[in-house]
Amino acid sequence: MNTVEQVLNQAEQGFKASMSKLFELLRIPSISTDPAYKADCQKAADWLVAELTAIGFAAKARPTGGHPMIVAHYTPKAATAKTPHVLFYGHYDVQPVDPLELWETKPFEPTLKTDKNGIERIYGRGTADDKGQLMTFVEAARAWIAASGSLPIKATFLIEGEEESGSASLIPFLNANKAELSCDVAFVCDTNMWDEKTPAITTRLRGMVKEEVTVTSPSLDLHSGLFGGAAMNPLRALSKMIAALHDKNGRVTIPEFYKGVSELPKATKKQWAGLKFSEKKFLGAVGLKSNAGEKNHSTIEQIWARPTAEVNGMWGGYQGAGSKTVIPSQAHAKFTFRLVGKQNPKAILKAFQVFAKKQMPKDAVISFSGEGSGSPASEISENNIYIQKSSAALKAEFKKETVLMGSGGSIPIVQSFKTILGMDSVLVGFGLNDDAIHSPNEKYNVSSFQKGIRSWVRIIAALGEK
Amino acid sequence: MNTVEQVLNQAEQGFKASMSKLFELLRIPSISTDPAYKADCQKAADWLVAELTAIGFAAKARPTGGHPMIVAHYTPKAATAKTPHVLFYGHYDVQPVDPLELWETKPFEPTLKTDKNGIERIYGRGTADDKGQLMTFVEAARAWIAASGSLPIKATFLIEGEEESGSASLIPFLNANKAELSCDVAFVCDTNMWDEKTPAITTRLRGMVKEEVTVTSPSLDLHSGLFGGAAMNPLRALSKMIAALHDKNGRVTIPEFYKGVSELPKATKKQWAGLKFSEKKFLGAVGLKSNAGEKNHSTIEQIWARPTAEVNGMWGGYQGAGSKTVIPSQAHAKFTFRLVGKQNPKAILKAFQVFAKKQMPKDAVISFSGEGSGSPASEISENNIYIQKSSAALKAEFKKETVLMGSGGSIPIVQSFKTILGMDSVLVGFGLNDDAIHSPNEKYNVSSFQKGIRSWVRIIAALGEK
Repeated sequence: MNTVEQVLNQAEQGFKASMSKLFELLRIPSISTDPAYKADCQKAADWLVAELTAIGFAAKARPTGGHPMIVAHYTPKAATAKTPHVLFYGHYDVQPVDPLELWETKPFEPTLKTDKNGIERIYGRGTADDKGQLMTFVEAARAWIAASGSLPIKATFLIEGEEESGSASLIPFLNANKAELSCDVAFVCDTNMWDEKTPAITTRLRGMVKEEVTVTSPSLDLHSGLFGGAAMNPLRALSKMIAALHDKNGRVTIPEFYKGVSELPKATKKQWAGLKFSEKKFLGAVGLKSNAGEKNHSTIEQIWARPTAEVNGMWGGYQGAGSKTVIPSQAHAKFTFRLVGKQNPKAILKAFQVFAKKQMPKDAVISFSGEGSGSPASEISENNIYIQKSSAALKAEFKKETVLMGSGGSIPIVQSFKTILGMDSVLVGFGLNDDAIHSPNEKYNVSSFQKGIRSWVRIIAALGEK
Repeated sequence: MNTVEQVLNQAEQGFKASMSKLFELLRIPSISTDPAYKADCQKAADWLVAELTAIGFAAKARPTGGHPMIVAHYTPKAATAKTPHVLFYGHYDVQPVDPLELWETKPFEPTLKTDKNGIERIYGRGTADDKGQLMTFVEAARAWIAASGSLPIKATFLIEGEEESGSASLIPFLNANKAELSCDVAFVCDTNMWDEKTPAITTRLRGMVKEEVTVTSPSLDLHSGLFGGAAMNPLRALSKMIAALHDKNGRVTIPEFYKGVSELPKATKKQWAGLKFSEKKFLGAVGLKSNAGEKNHSTIEQIWARPTAEVNGMWGGYQGAGSKTVIPSQAHAKFTFRLVGKQNPKAILKAFQVFAKKQMPKDAVISFSGEGSGSPASEISENNIYIQKSSAALKAEFKKETVLMGSGGSIPIVQSFKTILGMDSVLVGFGLNDDAIHSPNEKYNVSSFQKGIRSWVRIIAALGEK
């Protein structure tokens, strides 16, 4: 029996104990956004520090302006300068539980249920987001040290207590502890598998830049009888600009918008095409029948690997009951642009502003009041060594090819790790789409927890290999 | 000295007394919208009934569900079946006076002021809208009967007390008294001159039809990260439709929209071109520099004689502070269409609905929730006998050609007289653009009052001529 097999055996033998540990953590109502639960957040942090210390980590709950940040280090005795140093990130805080009346079990009394197909699930707040996920790390480390006496890598845990309430302390903490926290790579366990049987690594996260515009035409609201026909209407000007943002093929028309956007690598395109992703099901669930995006790109490509120009809100003139014969002075809209590849947020913003100005008819003046900031997309190459090692380890565990997924949204921590600590993040998680995170009856499948621990055992082994 | 000259002399000799009468009426705070002034409305009605009775009319303040309606009839002894019967319409109620602190004189203490150029003005609520104007009728009738013993026409006064608060009783009253109130023509004295020296008759009032639309795309609000790029955004669909409403020449693109719209008669076009209307001043006052309407039509044509398709309000998605990464389920807009000539409100509404539906991309469903009603434009031909007689009488008084104006808005009474009583309205008034009606420091020039009385003396004479 080789080392990995020994550690996997250890994990299996200890699984019941791992479940107990997880339940202990789940019972602590560490709701970070509600000051009433401040002591519970401290309690959850202390609990994790005690566990990590017991395993062999040098762990501390470090104070911040908000809830404590757990930092725990482990250096194998046999470590050399070449031993990889890996950071594991998770968060011990959870979302509030309201509306409480929709819960079928008590949110902080974790409950095991088995459905008619024999699938076991743990119900409770934080089961999937993120206590269950972060404990897959912890229990894998416990199994490694119990079975082999040591981890084969240098490991640092960074476990946050404010992820669900804005992460106010995170960036200052990373800046203040750069040297201590800069590792070779970060693993973030807060994402999903493709499905119950298919492991996944999220290698693409779209970036985003936002903008808000105001179009002013007349200097005051006008009577549409007195001025209608002669006066420019800012809603008309703004509508014209929004209508011009996309061509008839759904492509964004802003000049230079696609600069830095690459076509998908063939292998990825092929893998995604093979995913049996149901466009009909995905869109049908929200009342849509057809794909409204760029022609010649699949739905999955559009949401994972193509940029967008979206109007998130628009308003102007009279919105009350009945009618008002007004030509409004101003019209407003909020935009977000999802970014991929090497699209530069500042350049996109600038290009949009130039485009929007050009679209304005006479007597329509557009101004911009957005934050002007934004974050580029995060993409890790399929050839990255950590992606390759993790991908192979997951495949070994699941006996199925690992899907290299995209995510339409952004995960801010990934951006912070890159810009502040200079390291890439590998996003491996064991959640499922039906975990109901942030909702009543949040759950985590027992198989997610079990396969998660086993997967980390294998990934840690792969990382430690010469 | 002919009869008209005698009556004009009488009007001049009695002008001081006419001013006193006007001031008496102005002192009654007949604010119709405020129940606290209910007794004052009754008082104003009673005052007018007493005056009209004293002149020789059979006058009564008739009860309604709201404030009383004054009806007063005068039939000359020498009247035959061929003697024209003319209805004069005005209103004795006034707008509220707030903000009171902006008034330089007490609103119900009419005050005469003379400026450095010797121009005399009467300040007070109701001076121009509409007590000053309606008293030009009354005092002309008084002068006629005093000087010649009779009016040369059959006359009916209809003086309303709810014009400033929605005219709730008017249509039921007209319907209930059709035979009594149906005359050969109505004169409405609630409009303006072109300028201090140039008389005007408003012969064109635009009609209007309104509609409200809702565009629904996804069945619920979506996360723009998860669905952005694949899901249709209803704000985009609605913007596209609004942008398509006008072509690059400012012409409305709805098929059949211009059906029933005629080009201006050459004489009218020539007269309007000669008005020295300053587009720069008109648009400049509201912060605009250029005309946004149909090319090849002057600003004055656009607002008086051309139809419009206007969006009066639009909303959808997130409108609060900051940003929200949402693709909204719905987008909304309110529209009004100003109508001219023979445009049919129902046909326009239908044409718009068909157009709007055609503009919708896949997965954008538009629904219509407007009232579906509307009113056509009111236009009297320049060749109408009453227009011609009034126009000539005004020219004789002012020694200047009468301008046949348009008005971009609508005056509901004109529509009611046409549809319920089957008579056209001739809109003659002596207000000026700077009268500040509905505002603090409302005023009426003494010359408006004096020329107004003299003009009615001449118009009544012209109407009485065989």
